[in-house]
Amino acid sequence: MRTEHDSIGTHSIPDDAYYGIHTARAIENFPICGEQTSLELVRGLIEVKLAAAKTNLAAGELNPEVGQAIINAAQDLLKHDLNPKDFPTCAIQGGAGTSTNMNVNEVLANYSLEKAGHNKGDYQFIHPNDHINCGQSTNDAYPTAGKIALVRMLDELFTALSQLDKSLTAKGLEFSKTYKLGRTQLQDAVPMTLGNSFHSWQAPLRRDLKRLKETQKELEVINLGGSAIGSAINASAYYENHIVEELAAVTGLPLRQAPDLFDATVNLDGFLSLSSRLKSLAINLSKMANDLRLMSSGPRSGLNEIHLPAKQAGSSIMPGKVNPVIPEVVNQVAFEMMGFDTTISAAAEAGQFELNAFEPIIFKSLFAGIKHLTAAIETLRVNAIDGITANKKQLKEDLEHSVAYATAMVPILGYQDASDLAKEAIKSGKSLKELVTERQLFTPEQMEKIFDVETLVINQRSANHGLIFNTKIEKDPNH
Amino acid sequence: MRTEHDSIGTHSIPDDAYYGIHTARAIENFPICGEQTSLELVRGLIEVKLAAAKTNLAAGELNPEVGQAIINAAQDLLKHDLNPKDFPTCAIQGGAGTSTNMNVNEVLANYSLEKAGHNKGDYQFIHPNDHINCGQSTNDAYPTAGKIALVRMLDELFTALSQLDKSLTAKGLEFSKTYKLGRTQLQDAVPMTLGNSFHSWQAPLRRDLKRLKETQKELEVINLGGSAIGSAINASAYYENHIVEELAAVTGLPLRQAPDLFDATVNLDGFLSLSSRLKSLAINLSKMANDLRLMSSGPRSGLNEIHLPAKQAGSSIMPGKVNPVIPEVVNQVAFEMMGFDTTISAAAEAGQFELNAFEPIIFKSLFAGIKHLTAAIETLRVNAIDGITANKKQLKEDLEHSVAYATAMVPILGYQDASDLAKEAIKSGKSLKELVTERQLFTPEQMEKIFDVETLVINQRSANHGLIFNTKIEKDPNH
Amino acid sequence: MRTEHDSIGTHSIPDDAYYGIHTARAIENFPICGEQTSLELVRGLIEVKLAAAKTNLAAGELNPEVGQAIINAAQDLLKHDLNPKDFPTCAIQGGAGTSTNMNVNEVLANYSLEKAGHNKGDYQFIHPNDHINCGQSTNDAYPTAGKIALVRMLDELFTALSQLDKSLTAKGLEFSKTYKLGRTQLQDAVPMTLGNSFHSWQAPLRRDLKRLKETQKELEVINLGGSAIGSAINASAYYENHIVEELAAVTGLPLRQAPDLFDATVNLDGFLSLSSRLKSLAINLSKMANDLRLMSSGPRSGLNEIHLPAKQAGSSIMPGKVNPVIPEVVNQVAFEMMGFDTTISAAAEAGQFELNAFEPIIFKSLFAGIKHLTAAIETLRVNAIDGITANKKQLKEDLEHSVAYATAMVPILGYQDASDLAKEAIKSGKSLKELVTERQLFTPEQMEKIFDVETLVINQRSANHGLIFNTKIEKDPNH
Amino acid sequence: MRTEHDSIGTHSIPDDAYYGIHTARAIENFPICGEQTSLELVRGLIEVKLAAAKTNLAAGELNPEVGQAIINAAQDLLKHDLNPKDFPTCAIQGGAGTSTNMNVNEVLANYSLEKAGHNKGDYQFIHPNDHINCGQSTNDAYPTAGKIALVRMLDELFTALSQLDKSLTAKGLEFSKTYKLGRTQLQDAVPMTLGNSFHSWQAPLRRDLKRLKETQKELEVINLGGSAIGSAINASAYYENHIVEELAAVTGLPLRQAPDLFDATVNLDGFLSLSSRLKSLAINLSKMANDLRLMSSGPRSGLNEIHLPAKQAGSSIMPGKVNPVIPEVVNQVAFEMMGFDTTISAAAEAGQFELNAFEPIIFKSLFAGIKHLTAAIETLRVNAIDGITANKKQLKEDLEHSVAYATAMVPILGYQDASDLAKEAIKSGKSLKELVTERQLFTPEQMEKIFDVETLVINQRSANHGLIFNTKIEKDPNH
Repeated sequence: MRTEHDSIGTHSIPDDAYYGIHTARAIENFPICGEQTSLELVRGLIEVKLAAAKTNLAAGELNPEVGQAIINAAQDLLKHDLNPKDFPTCAIQGGAGTSTNMNVNEVLANYSLEKAGHNKGDYQFIHPNDHINCGQSTNDAYPTAGKIALVRMLDELFTALSQLDKSLTAKGLEFSKTYKLGRTQLQDAVPMTLGNSFHSWQAPLRRDLKRLKETQKELEVINLGGSAIGSAINASAYYENHIVEELAAVTGLPLRQAPDLFDATVNLDGFLSLSSRLKSLAINLSKMANDLRLMSSGPRSGLNEIHLPAKQAGSSIMPGKVNPVIPEVVNQVAFEMMGFDTTISAAAEAGQFELNAFEPIIFKSLFAGIKHLTAAIETLRVNAIDGITANKKQLKEDLEHSVAYATAMVPILGYQDASDLAKEAIKSGKSLKELVTERQLFTPEQMEKIFDVETLVINQRSANHGLIFNTKIEKDPNH
Repeated sequence: MRTEHDSIGTHSIPDDAYYGIHTARAIENFPICGEQTSLELVRGLIEVKLAAAKTNLAAGELNPEVGQAIINAAQDLLKHDLNPKDFPTCAIQGGAGTSTNMNVNEVLANYSLEKAGHNKGDYQFIHPNDHINCGQSTNDAYPTAGKIALVRMLDELFTALSQLDKSLTAKGLEFSKTYKLGRTQLQDAVPMTLGNSFHSWQAPLRRDLKRLKETQKELEVINLGGSAIGSAINASAYYENHIVEELAAVTGLPLRQAPDLFDATVNLDGFLSLSSRLKSLAINLSKMANDLRLMSSGPRSGLNEIHLPAKQAGSSIMPGKVNPVIPEVVNQVAFEMMGFDTTISAAAEAGQFELNAFEPIIFKSLFAGIKHLTAAIETLRVNAIDGITANKKQLKEDLEHSVAYATAMVPILGYQDASDLAKEAIKSGKSLKELVTERQLFTPEQMEKIFDVETLVINQRSANHGLIFNTKIEKDPNH
Repeated sequence: MRTEHDSIGTHSIPDDAYYGIHTARAIENFPICGEQTSLELVRGLIEVKLAAAKTNLAAGELNPEVGQAIINAAQDLLKHDLNPKDFPTCAIQGGAGTSTNMNVNEVLANYSLEKAGHNKGDYQFIHPNDHINCGQSTNDAYPTAGKIALVRMLDELFTALSQLDKSLTAKGLEFSKTYKLGRTQLQDAVPMTLGNSFHSWQAPLRRDLKRLKETQKELEVINLGGSAIGSAINASAYYENHIVEELAAVTGLPLRQAPDLFDATVNLDGFLSLSSRLKSLAINLSKMANDLRLMSSGPRSGLNEIHLPAKQAGSSIMPGKVNPVIPEVVNQVAFEMMGFDTTISAAAEAGQFELNAFEPIIFKSLFAGIKHLTAAIETLRVNAIDGITANKKQLKEDLEHSVAYATAMVPILGYQDASDLAKEAIKSGKSLKELVTERQLFTPEQMEKIFDVETLVINQRSANHGLIFNTKIEKDPNH
Repeated sequence: MRTEHDSIGTHSIPDDAYYGIHTARAIENFPICGEQTSLELVRGLIEVKLAAAKTNLAAGELNPEVGQAIINAAQDLLKHDLNPKDFPTCAIQGGAGTSTNMNVNEVLANYSLEKAGHNKGDYQFIHPNDHINCGQSTNDAYPTAGKIALVRMLDELFTALSQLDKSLTAKGLEFSKTYKLGRTQLQDAVPMTLGNSFHSWQAPLRRDLKRLKETQKELEVINLGGSAIGSAINASAYYENHIVEELAAVTGLPLRQAPDLFDATVNLDGFLSLSSRLKSLAINLSKMANDLRLMSSGPRSGLNEIHLPAKQAGSSIMPGKVNPVIPEVVNQVAFEMMGFDTTISAAAEAGQFELNAFEPIIFKSLFAGIKHLTAAIETLRVNAIDGITANKKQLKEDLEHSVAYATAMVPILGYQDASDLAKEAIKSGKSLKELVTERQLFTPEQMEKIFDVETLVINQRSANHGLIFNTKIEKDPNH
């Protein structure tokens, strides 16, 4: 055990621990959720420290020995998977992220000390605050690291979304001539194609992707250089003006400095915006999942319009039962994301004066939201969408059996007479075709037109659907 | 126009206005939502003022002439519908309800002045603050009035709920032998009765009613006597000890004084509790509405298990279409209530120190929540539940057509063989009965038992359902 | 009384009523909330009907007499304020808006009939469905009308936001040299200007405005021409291709037709997006309101940094009390909007197959959200922001009294020694300046730099603040 | 590797795995959140299986050899910590918990097989479905297990709450004569004691505890015996009537069987009720945390009324800064719980027909909510409440400096004159006492009464506070 001290007092630290006294106190203060701070955020913080060391070295704020030791240590750490034992702070913590920032400051100080031939804890040579944190504050380093993590996680979400988009395009085209009964308010309405269903699930996801990409751009605007509250106090002018481009180089991300660093420090509307967009994606996925579950309901006494791939036995007691387990998990991830948005909204509203102290719960929620949605989209695509088959027999019977064609009679009969006819068909159990044939209400040409499903469902716009959805997603024809 | 003054300055007031300067300022400060403060809350405030005048008169804090004028004026006002023009403050207002409390103080002062032969505005004789508000603060008078309004509105909700309960009991009994296919995860499961469905909608509503009645009791605990922040400052000891029983007499409600008036002034967990219970009710109603919409889907290509009464033509374009419009409005009221709960949660969390300044939006949300739910329950009962009929033919076919009976074969065949059998039935399109008959898998006795739907669905507990749900709601057998 | 009939049966209608049987049934079915459907949405629907009549006339789908009568009637109605008695459908209704669409169909039919010399109810000449609704479905007419209303309401919100922006710019510049203590986590931090505070409230509102304008553009994409479920059934090719440009001309709005009408009919992510953006605005306003309330706390034993204009006496019992009633009402409108977002999210998720039946509650919530936020912004600007004065004496004392300057000593002393010094200052009650002067820790040049507040707070970025925020809002320098 | 098969096909399973094919498929289907199903729920499931085996053995549904092997295996497993490798199903899963139920069925089958001298996978001897799951369905076993876990977790929460209650009682008594300025709407109001503050935080927590205990009782009502959908299909009458008492014996919990098993299977209002109560607790804790942060604001330029224990250095850059990190983490846990309530509400609303398939996300959210709240309460008590000291000097100055005493002058001067006096005091900077002494407005007796803070704050009710809050929590004097 070594002993470290701070303004509060002293604390013993395990000899092999790279973290120091601040981290040790954080462990005691926040034994909240059993989940550590995301290592992706920690990695972002190390990148911040690396960029800061480089910039401070160039500015003459660090002497070459110290600066180089930090740079070496940071680069080493970034080469490998981080060791979770080094970064034990709880994902839910008070202090606006100071614990995690100081944790990284301490770990990097001790790795640097060892690089420079000193012992862990010999902070008179390389100090967590004076050298590692030089020019920074938790106020700017921590949210910047969080944004780096978010930007990268979003890329994975975008990949998953693009792959789902391709699958939906393929299915939409596959079913572009598979006619079916459209429904409004769960009641039989008018004809359409099964392809239309896939396109109508796909289109909002494309908008979500577009919106999320815009939001990703907002997240690339960081407040580094602002140090405490955006004032840039203790940051040299050189540092203030060069740190962001250095960090962009270190991370490979197109980071940009916020024009108003006070604003960029306190206001979390960018995170709220991301949360909203993720919620929109979640809700659009949930609606798709709901439709999939309804359309595959049965197998005998449901709508039974499509078959989802059977992924597991559906019951511990009911033989032969297969449930729509994949859409069900999508629904749950969506409900979870709706909850995250509530949490993030409450946290965003609670900021006071020059800082919002509640970034840790916001990051925790956003990280989980993105990752769970990415996973849900993946399993939805692989284990459900790609294997969907149409129950064409059922679709055809439903359509012929329905009174959907009554709408096509309105221009000839008028709404009221067509209504009476539909009502009679439903009451009698006869098909509409039978009924109008019996009564010779239409000429053969009219008959052909009324019951020609292809003409009915191909509107001027939807005629281009295949074309629209076959286009590469980047072109975004929907806007 | 007459001129009134306060600590801020002066303001001209229309000659015929019973309200005064505080109200006039409130009109200018809060032109927010076009909806006035609930007259039910205003009535509650007048009752508070009446009880206070009586108590202060008995305590010698008001001279007989002033006290009696106030009592007369208040009693007069309470005899009739209140005049909305007298009470123009916006339902959403800053100031923790002070505007509405002062509005009532002013109106009652001016009515009292006229009763006593003075002119409106001659506050030297009867003063809004010194006499009408004597012993009170907005901190206690306003939430007390809100609680009075809530307690009464809840009674109307309870009536609506009890009537719906009766209707559901009746339908449950009507369909207690109407067998149908039960479904889990939208997939065919095992047999049950349509009566079970009605009981399973009814049971949580009974729990909601029970929970809401408990919450109503919490609301009867008021902080009157606490004046500012619960300190009872400027309230005489006599007043502090007698005002609540006087108000109980005036209102006819079993009001009780809170044991800790500081606590009872600042903490709004009682309103939050009410909100939660209303949300629970909303969600249980919404689930019922969802089931009703699914069960009545069709008319041809849906589940088509029940018929809802046709209440209006369902479409401006599609002839003969009838939609489940009544359940749909129930869903929307439920979604609205879920939103109210969010609003109330945010407001409840935002209280600071000795007061929560956000009671106005809480009251507005709770009042709307209760009233809309009451109306939704009424239209659901009258325009939907009472007229539901079963599509017995469909229910019977679905059941016979299904593989639900495979579960009953498990004790004989084992899970895996029964599964293979069910799978084959589904694949072949044959009914399970056909299949097992062909293969002579069971003895006649076994066959009878497996396919005897009545035995299958009557478990020990559900045998008592009719009995349970036929019981008067007050006995609450569910707990 | 006249008698009208539909597929359900007959209903008597008051002789002077322009609405018909569908509306009469809706009144009975939905006595939910006592609030009528927004007349702004109704106006949008009449515009849809006018554009449809013009287009159908051009296409030869309406004969000239009927077409012209409808055009005349619609133009007449649009010239004046609508008569609320004509449009009694409840804002919360089942049926996906069919009641309101049919209400307008009926009212316009009857006005047209009178224009054409017929009696109300003589639908054989001009029929609500066959002529007024020609080429349309509630599925496209109703959401289009709602979008028209939203686009216009947003313009008013934008005006209010732009005016608030100007006021914040002015105050930011007014206080650009008014130094104050910055705070993080409610604890004394480092120096800044009061102008920084105003800019940090202003900046996210500018982003909100930008985001809302993007969303407004999304709302201008409509599904008219899709009729039922987006299939364009019963719409002529001419109509499908010309109706939107006609409606753009009628409304004066840059409306565009959606590329996929099925998608545009069922998916409500555009409304959800608007809701999210409104929530972001609400939350940013609420944070500002919270800061204003904290900064003006006192008058004696609070932070007491600024004075809000006194708008009304603050208490019915406590003399001289003035409360921050304007920020308080802003908070409540924000909480309400957070609730609306919950409602809209639930409703958006609940869409099924080709339609989301829950648009009425979505519109009701969005309309109220926009209007209440607009009103709250207006009262915030006029009754609070424009009249704020700084308590310069307090601000100066707080700054000098604080240990904020210790941060500026870190580059010289190191973090740990500076910490010990700050700790001692707090403990002793001495000012930091006294302490370091006593101990002669710094050279005169260092002393000057450390305690030169102006240098401390003017970072490279914030030096441009005045410039940034003085720029016209349209240039949006924040992105 | 061994090969197992089910109705879907075959799957290879690691030789040392106790789980089987259903679990293997679940791993592939639900790689969602990296968090396994709670082992506390798994333990509950094993207890269900143990009780079922005992009951089925007694009923003759299992032969003694099989029954005893299962009982032995289950008892063995329950004696030790469960091995996480045996139970790899994701906490977020589709299928309504079937994966976790089957996971336990498989693991227990294989342990039992080994107990009975067979190999893993030899299910012809002991079968996951036929023997382990005998008489059960996921529909009843899974929610029962979840309830068992919840009931136990709640006990830990109650312990934490009771200990916090004791601490608050102690602090309330410690500060029962520490006078301070009360505040409404962040503005100076009237005198009170610091003890009142602690009591007003404590009182709602007591109500929350009472409410949560009621909810815990609701959770003890289980649907075991209902098997699929509550029908009790394949459960023997003996089993249906004895399983719950057997499980009560196994778990040591006062479990009771629901009167209507259909209702108890589909309706999740009990979980929603728990969620609401947890949210109420969260919000009450958050309000307390907000007050603590405000009261401890400073150290120089804040309210500075109390000192929180310094738990860690507050900043990586600002020396000497100490932040209210413990209340801040409480706020975040509260915001998280508000989000969980949103998730649970959405999930509860989404149930369909005879089952709600979304129990997994509900359990995940409730488990996290209870555990995080328990941890937050613990750290709040130990690291904040117990160490709070009052800044008596500041409290006294604030009180004397304020115009709070003006309220006490109202009965003598009237509201308007007292207002003018207060206004003048604030304007002049003089204390109220100075001012009224100068002007000789009161007799010595009046002066004494007006400025006697003790009399002012001791109302009839609050006189009993110490008594009330010193009472054991079980007596619950608040209701």
